[in-house]
Amino acid sequence: MSAPPIRILGIDPGLRNTGWGVIETQGTRLSFISCGRIRSDGALDMGNRLRQLHEGLMQVIADYAPHEAAVEETFVNRDPQSTLKLGQARGIALMAPALAGLEIAEYAANLVKKTVVGAGHAEKAQIQMMVRVLLPASQASSADAADALAVAICHAQHRGARALKALA
Amino acid sequence: MSAPPIRILGIDPGLRNTGWGVIETQGTRLSFISCGRIRSDGALDMGNRLRQLHEGLMQVIADYAPHEAAVEETFVNRDPQSTLKLGQARGIALMAPALAGLEIAEYAANLVKKTVVGAGHAEKAQIQMMVRVLLPASQASSADAADALAVAICHAQHRGARALKALA
Repeated sequence: MSAPPIRILGIDPGLRNTGWGVIETQGTRLSFISCGRIRSDGALDMGNRLRQLHEGLMQVIADYAPHEAAVEETFVNRDPQSTLKLGQARGIALMAPALAGLEIAEYAANLVKKTVVGAGHAEKAQIQMMVRVLLPASQASSADAADALAVAICHAQHRGARALKALA
Repeated sequence: MSAPPIRILGIDPGLRNTGWGVIETQGTRLSFISCGRIRSDGALDMGNRLRQLHEGLMQVIADYAPHEAAVEETFVNRDPQSTLKLGQARGIALMAPALAGLEIAEYAANLVKKTVVGAGHAEKAQIQMMVRVLLPASQASSADAADALAVAICHAQHRGARALKALA
């Protein structure tokens, strides 16, 4: 008897757009469940923009009931104000799955690219293309959703190694 | 008949310790309600540390039912990794009051110091001392709680001007 499928939520955090993607992994098989992006309204104050991201993510978690979550380690910008804003959005992306009781893995952007494309310095377009190859049903409509699916795929490949490490 | 008292929650965000302070303002009168700090457990993963801060703040809001919230604008560190971490904690500090339906004001650190101490470059110790003078009942036990009370006092002084500006 094979192990039951594991459902993974990948998140690509951003203040304006937070991408998300849900996949299932069973053995070496991957299947697409859903993806999309959550927008925040730039006309609102920061607290309410973050609330929109939080409520959007909690809704995705309620709708698709993932078992685990994976978030890409954020590219740290040279501009401190941008880094701070990204950090605020990323705080929401990490907290929402924790509030829902999910385990959360973080992966460096280079590892995500290496896992999905085979090279650590892949272009955005290459990632989108490989996500379509690996999950033909996805047709991720936005780059944010494709990036979120990429981090979910990365977690599907590496979660076994993580589990073994945790047992050691 | 004078306007009813307004209850203000001040927050000093930090990943390890988030300070909070609740005061009431009525006309030119300030009174201390409560203060403290919420700690996150450094042994946990980031998502769960942020969840602890979030749950702690939601508890404070439930316990003291503030009408408005004020958060200090974060000092942006030169080190991008520290800025990102602070941003994550700050995202939680801004989102929790929004989730509870409170209006949230943000104030530059210099304005907080100028309002409370009278100088924009005050030392931490001066802020703590002036908070004790302005709110004799407080005896804030930690610097984080004193900073949170200081931003609440700053909001009490400036909220009238903000309200007029919003009407204009």
